[in-house]
Amino acid sequence: LVVSDAMAAVTADEAWLQAMLDAEAALAWAEEAAGVVPAGTAGRIAAACRAERFDPAELGRQARAGGNPVIPLVAALTRAVGGDAGGWVHWGATSQDILDTAQMLVSVRALSVIDRALTDLAAACAAQAEAHRRTLMAGRTLLQQALPVTFGLCAAGWLTGVVGARAGLRAAGSALPAQLGGAAGTLASLGDHGPAVVAAFADHLGLAEPVLPWHTARQPVAALAAALGVVAGTAAKVSGDVALLMQTELAEVSEPAEPGRGGSSTLPHKRNPVAAAAVGSAARQATALVPVLLGALVAEHQRPVGAWQAEWEPLSRLLALAGSAGEQTAMTVAGLEVHVGAMRANLDRTGGLLLAERVTLALAVRTDDGTPVGRPAARSAVEHACRSALASGRDLADALADDPLAGRLLPAAQIRELLDPVGYLGSTDVWIDRALAAHAASDGVAPGLAIADPPAAVAVAGAQA
Amino acid sequence: LVVSDAMAAVTADEAWLQAMLDAEAALAWAEEAAGVVPAGTAGRIAAACRAERFDPAELGRQARAGGNPVIPLVAALTRAVGGDAGGWVHWGATSQDILDTAQMLVSVRALSVIDRALTDLAAACAAQAEAHRRTLMAGRTLLQQALPVTFGLCAAGWLTGVVGARAGLRAAGSALPAQLGGAAGTLASLGDHGPAVVAAFADHLGLAEPVLPWHTARQPVAALAAALGVVAGTAAKVSGDVALLMQTELAEVSEPAEPGRGGSSTLPHKRNPVAAAAVGSAARQATALVPVLLGALVAEHQRPVGAWQAEWEPLSRLLALAGSAGEQTAMTVAGLEVHVGAMRANLDRTGGLLLAERVTLALAVRTDDGTPVGRPAARSAVEHACRSALASGRDLADALADDPLAGRLLPAAQIRELLDPVGYLGSTDVWIDRALAAHAASDGVAPGLAIADPPAAVAVAGAQA
Amino acid sequence: LVVSDAMAAVTADEAWLQAMLDAEAALAWAEEAAGVVPAGTAGRIAAACRAERFDPAELGRQARAGGNPVIPLVAALTRAVGGDAGGWVHWGATSQDILDTAQMLVSVRALSVIDRALTDLAAACAAQAEAHRRTLMAGRTLLQQALPVTFGLCAAGWLTGVVGARAGLRAAGSALPAQLGGAAGTLASLGDHGPAVVAAFADHLGLAEPVLPWHTARQPVAALAAALGVVAGTAAKVSGDVALLMQTELAEVSEPAEPGRGGSSTLPHKRNPVAAAAVGSAARQATALVPVLLGALVAEHQRPVGAWQAEWEPLSRLLALAGSAGEQTAMTVAGLEVHVGAMRANLDRTGGLLLAERVTLALAVRTDDGTPVGRPAARSAVEHACRSALASGRDLADALADDPLAGRLLPAAQIRELLDPVGYLGSTDVWIDRALAAHAASDGVAPGLAIADPPAAVAVAGAQA
Amino acid sequence: LVVSDAMAAVTADEAWLQAMLDAEAALAWAEEAAGVVPAGTAGRIAAACRAERFDPAELGRQARAGGNPVIPLVAALTRAVGGDAGGWVHWGATSQDILDTAQMLVSVRALSVIDRALTDLAAACAAQAEAHRRTLMAGRTLLQQALPVTFGLCAAGWLTGVVGARAGLRAAGSALPAQLGGAAGTLASLGDHGPAVVAAFADHLGLAEPVLPWHTARQPVAALAAALGVVAGTAAKVSGDVALLMQTELAEVSEPAEPGRGGSSTLPHKRNPVAAAAVGSAARQATALVPVLLGALVAEHQRPVGAWQAEWEPLSRLLALAGSAGEQTAMTVAGLEVHVGAMRANLDRTGGLLLAERVTLALAVRTDDGTPVGRPAARSAVEHACRSALASGRDLADALADDPLAGRLLPAAQIRELLDPVGYLGSTDVWIDRALAAHAASDGVAPGLAIADPPAAVAVAGAQA
Repeated sequence: LVVSDAMAAVTADEAWLQAMLDAEAALAWAEEAAGVVPAGTAGRIAAACRAERFDPAELGRQARAGGNPVIPLVAALTRAVGGDAGGWVHWGATSQDILDTAQMLVSVRALSVIDRALTDLAAACAAQAEAHRRTLMAGRTLLQQALPVTFGLCAAGWLTGVVGARAGLRAAGSALPAQLGGAAGTLASLGDHGPAVVAAFADHLGLAEPVLPWHTARQPVAALAAALGVVAGTAAKVSGDVALLMQTELAEVSEPAEPGRGGSSTLPHKRNPVAAAAVGSAARQATALVPVLLGALVAEHQRPVGAWQAEWEPLSRLLALAGSAGEQTAMTVAGLEVHVGAMRANLDRTGGLLLAERVTLALAVRTDDGTPVGRPAARSAVEHACRSALASGRDLADALADDPLAGRLLPAAQIRELLDPVGYLGSTDVWIDRALAAHAASDGVAPGLAIADPPAAVAVAGAQA
Repeated sequence: LVVSDAMAAVTADEAWLQAMLDAEAALAWAEEAAGVVPAGTAGRIAAACRAERFDPAELGRQARAGGNPVIPLVAALTRAVGGDAGGWVHWGATSQDILDTAQMLVSVRALSVIDRALTDLAAACAAQAEAHRRTLMAGRTLLQQALPVTFGLCAAGWLTGVVGARAGLRAAGSALPAQLGGAAGTLASLGDHGPAVVAAFADHLGLAEPVLPWHTARQPVAALAAALGVVAGTAAKVSGDVALLMQTELAEVSEPAEPGRGGSSTLPHKRNPVAAAAVGSAARQATALVPVLLGALVAEHQRPVGAWQAEWEPLSRLLALAGSAGEQTAMTVAGLEVHVGAMRANLDRTGGLLLAERVTLALAVRTDDGTPVGRPAARSAVEHACRSALASGRDLADALADDPLAGRLLPAAQIRELLDPVGYLGSTDVWIDRALAAHAASDGVAPGLAIADPPAAVAVAGAQA
Repeated sequence: LVVSDAMAAVTADEAWLQAMLDAEAALAWAEEAAGVVPAGTAGRIAAACRAERFDPAELGRQARAGGNPVIPLVAALTRAVGGDAGGWVHWGATSQDILDTAQMLVSVRALSVIDRALTDLAAACAAQAEAHRRTLMAGRTLLQQALPVTFGLCAAGWLTGVVGARAGLRAAGSALPAQLGGAAGTLASLGDHGPAVVAAFADHLGLAEPVLPWHTARQPVAALAAALGVVAGTAAKVSGDVALLMQTELAEVSEPAEPGRGGSSTLPHKRNPVAAAAVGSAARQATALVPVLLGALVAEHQRPVGAWQAEWEPLSRLLALAGSAGEQTAMTVAGLEVHVGAMRANLDRTGGLLLAERVTLALAVRTDDGTPVGRPAARSAVEHACRSALASGRDLADALADDPLAGRLLPAAQIRELLDPVGYLGSTDVWIDRALAAHAASDGVAPGLAIADPPAAVAVAGAQA
Repeated sequence: LVVSDAMAAVTADEAWLQAMLDAEAALAWAEEAAGVVPAGTAGRIAAACRAERFDPAELGRQARAGGNPVIPLVAALTRAVGGDAGGWVHWGATSQDILDTAQMLVSVRALSVIDRALTDLAAACAAQAEAHRRTLMAGRTLLQQALPVTFGLCAAGWLTGVVGARAGLRAAGSALPAQLGGAAGTLASLGDHGPAVVAAFADHLGLAEPVLPWHTARQPVAALAAALGVVAGTAAKVSGDVALLMQTELAEVSEPAEPGRGGSSTLPHKRNPVAAAAVGSAARQATALVPVLLGALVAEHQRPVGAWQAEWEPLSRLLALAGSAGEQTAMTVAGLEVHVGAMRANLDRTGGLLLAERVTLALAVRTDDGTPVGRPAARSAVEHACRSALASGRDLADALADDPLAGRLLPAAQIRELLDPVGYLGSTDVWIDRALAAHAASDGVAPGLAIADPPAAVAVAGAQA
């Protein structure tokens, strides 16, 4: 339920199947270029490497006997190619070469979609930060109103997080390597041709050329998983704030209205934060999958029993969950209804208490009979006035006026001014400017990650740019 | 038990306390430079900012009332500074400013130790890769002997993983930001001085200057945690391989011998892989902590209830665990006893079966009556010979000689040559060269991360270089 | 910071040390009874088994060489006992026997404290359920007001969860077994005396007698860890609700006021949900440790490399975290300030919208010109009235009066009655009664778990009752 | 790839859909019995509640708008029922009532399959324990040979773990409750009929009657998830041992041979532990999902945003993974090839070193010139002899004969006898007997869990027996 159609498509069984076939085709091209297989072979193999010619469900069933789907796929592909060329299918490779390469292709293609979602999300946050630069609201710490902020500053904070998460994902996804090492990583089956074939293979697929076969050096996969976990958590921070701000008693924002969306099955008046619920669900699941991929680093010898086999479905699902979380959150922020009046009303609800810090600081630098008041005395006086205001239901201004210290040293007009939140926003404008500038400098479109429409054919633009 | 003295020291309560005091001192210096606090204040505050003047256990107890240790620390520091200067302690900051900054200082200082351990580990792997470039051993996949490799290639694989994990850690640790935002991130308490004070504050501490306060944009922390998880898993891969190779029946390596180390309490003859056990334990614990830090991304509003408070101990422990795992593994690899004879004996134990792939490939390209044999027929013949050899206990050479197809097309001398593992190492030498070159290019010492001796004073060289 | 003094004490290094010594003493007693060691030996050994005679930090350092603390402890204890008796220390046991048994003793003693906390928490929830049985408040789903409930029903829901979590913990902790198997589980070192010694050993310690040595059958530990995870999550549900209800805009409850508690370092007027933050932090950390213990089930052969060694600190910390979460939440609920007026005011804030479901159901069973209205038409009419009320700011009663269908079929008086929440509480009273009855039936004090004051001496009442 | 056909079927979208329809039908029956809906309604609704009449994929798509699949399902079911009866579909229920009840039905049905797998696995372990009660093999700790054991004892250890895991699962699954509370848990929509309808609803479905609605008291789900995690880990312990024992150098067991199973895509001679790889993969994934379900305990107010929505897919997958792990391991153990000769050969490989402990104990109780030798001196002598044997490649018997102390006090014949592993099995037979007895007492078939063939219709025998 939480995975979008787009993310489901790029991580589906069919996408994996096509990626495996792309790897087999690229292997043939690379081997033909190196003279390992006869001229003309690669074209015949590549022609058969189309997912729609194979049945993923059937391959999945057959995969159980050998523990991976490449074994039955190679058999089926050999039959599909037929003739002499068929005999050269999968030449010199091991199952893991194909599956790891496919995993990287699926990742690169999914990352293209995810990057676009994050780019949309960042743009939406930037737009809200600019539009609501001066929209006053209560800043809340530990769920208590603390100090005035603006909704633009909130959005700028979201923006910085999204830009950071996207940068981490781009770094993790920018050089995903092809895999080709043969049964134990030596590529002995290719004699002296190993390095040349690997280079051509990777180049053909738009993947990075690895230093050496990484059958049990899984840092690229683990780092990618971690970056996806950060993306999911980043989305959930934003959508979680939206859900909190949508609470009936706050009503400061609403998720975008769509016909039929967010309704309750029994309560006609409700409008639920359904995107937040979906994103929260996705992030919880995504976060939990990261340790599976970290655990897969501990891969015995040249190929492990269990660790590697635990990568496929979790990574595929991590991609789907993180991407869907990003997409949903982008839609939420882009179409967010911001209730400016409610924000201001909530801010005013505490009768000035949120400005207590400001009064404290102003009082602290006053002098009383030539002695500076100092922070401890100022704080004590203001705390007393706050408690008095809370107890009596009066505004803080009145309580301060009655306070022996504050009432004496701070004129009523200054108290009024001190309690106006507009004047107590500190560096808010600067922070927003800086967040927008950092976003602009991060360039909205990632070169290399957003070129091709996934799932694309063999020659998809890779992650190396 | 699994945390080393060095890592315990840089993550201990005292290290955190000093880091918080360093933050308070740097705040005073930055505010004095900006004219926020009177000249002469910072010197007096800084003079009191020495951990040995405070009692971490007592502060910890007092911390419970307010939910963080900064509240009692500020009170104690104010008393320790005394006079007018005491009133300016913590001016304009919120608890999270100090605690987040301290967390980054503790991290930077711990990362320096961890980086050194990884650098040692990489150097040890590189040395083993070079020394055992030609040391034949069985490559093992799914715990079954698969093809010949060399121990140097194993070590080159370890090396590549370590260099990758270290690069990820450096990237995550290279720009850890200072935190300064005041109660809700606006720095309203500093009026117009906010940006200048933040810049000076970060500069003083050698931390990066943040775009804006990141009280609830925790990507730097989450990414650091993830990178530490990768480090721990990388160490556990290496030490896990050592433990497997130390099995009584393989006996191909031993952890370094030290007096009293690895002994059993009841079995006088045993030598246990105690480093591997410690590293395995550390990696399991480290991996599990990563989702706590990913979960902390979902931080409500301007400061969360629970998420932020769940960062401190897990991050501190992650640093300790990952660093200890790196150190132990570095010692293991540096002093590893490599039993070359046992490696060769184990490789020979299967009577040539490991070269079956090679025979298959050689047979496949033969022609029989003018027709190429092809891979399917070759594989079928060799599989048959293997089964026959296994069943009869004979060497594969003999079984192949008796095979109708292989025996006819492959002369006995060629079979002998094909079954010599020395000739079937493929690109092993190239891979080792490339791994060593990549390691050399990654420069053993990380500038900026390895300059100061942690835990250092306020002016520690930061993570920005 | 999140671990209480009580939980810290029962899980401290000293508590582990005493538990190991208790195991060594019990072993001597059991072996003396079976005639395995000379009469008089056990008394001499037991006399030396006092934690204050040993230095846990020094033992910890020495433990690294052998990978566990039992090796140096046995050496130190042998010296402390001296003479002939010293030679019989640890007779026939392996390190894991002592450490596993100590782990179970530490657990049993900690469980006694945790059980008391949960019992207090359950009692506090029951008291609130009874006291606020009729205290109206808004039920909230997806953070939106949904239907009226009472605060007593909320508390009854908490109560049911706490009773369930406590039952799970009692089940997991009720038969924690002693461990005694010797180096590989055969107890070969004790000849024919094995079973008798195991029985006496377990009996002496108040632990369950195991079916066979469970060195690598870790189900008791894994199940205990899981139950502790449930406890921590259960506490966090309650304290999380409190934090949400404490929001400035809701202000329906407050954590108990204590001097200096919940204050902010900079905001004099705030009262933070500090217990909720601590419990939330504890639960996040506790939840993450559970998979470490589940992963330890996969323990190789007769003793694993890494899995077992990853149990000690995580289990000890899980006990501390879960217990502290329970204690804090018990204090929160017992002393909770319930703001009945705010609850009612918030419920009334939506002008009757929360009763829309009730109106729908009443309208659906009306007949219009002899035809039943039915739910779809009723829902459509009420939804329309809700939207109209929301848009115009009017009460739902007025909007319904204007509705062509509802206004015609429902008289104004009935509408008023339908919109009174007091009459729409359904089975609330029954549920509260049932929750209280189930709590009463679960008997507040767990026999066997709450008898002794931990950490107690060897003869502590065990978990078997 | 790791999920079996059987487990896939009982956790598939279709199984969930039928379970939701079963819940809707049972609701109608219960309400008709209570007189809430007109006589004759339930029959018409129940007749339409057949999964094949609905399209799960389409419902899934529509589910996104409201955040759960019940909203579109109710609409579709209302249309399918039609007429007056259609208007009574879902009467008084909330989406979560149906989804939670369906989740419990899916669980009960899946648990029936899982229980059968565990029962098969236990029976297979018991058979191996009996058959190989005297089959000598090396006991291994930290992957080092330690002491002689028998393969029967290994299998008895597995058996005890499996019986324990199954007991935990039965406890967690034995009283899974139905859910019915309406929008906020009060069942206000049913007036006074709530308790009666809930009782009839649960009874109709064979689920337990809850104390009160448990929309946010998720202990039953969390405990079930934890028990499934224990099951998966238990299976992985067994299959992991099999993979280790299958290592080329040990070759003590083989996974059952099936045509085409366990083959490598390139290495004709290999037979891979493919079941162990699948089970290991499943257990890693299952373990990681447990914290998601524990985290879902922290469910806000009367229905959470994200926590509940994160239960469905993880729990469904946990059921599938744990069950598949159990099934695969049952097949592995039932058909395991045990290579008795290899076990003995490996045990003899160390030339008696494994009996060193026995010699130590025998030597310790000797007297030398009237003084007992004592354990320290004995251990020192035997350690010396072990090192001498290892260094020289001689048998331990010879090295002991040359030792000044051992050679003098132990005659050669006694040394020979001491070094015969047959005589040093301690309580092995007793442990096996006890494990078999405990298994027998646990009765192979769980009443109530194994009656019906899942997925069954509404009246499936529930989990209450």
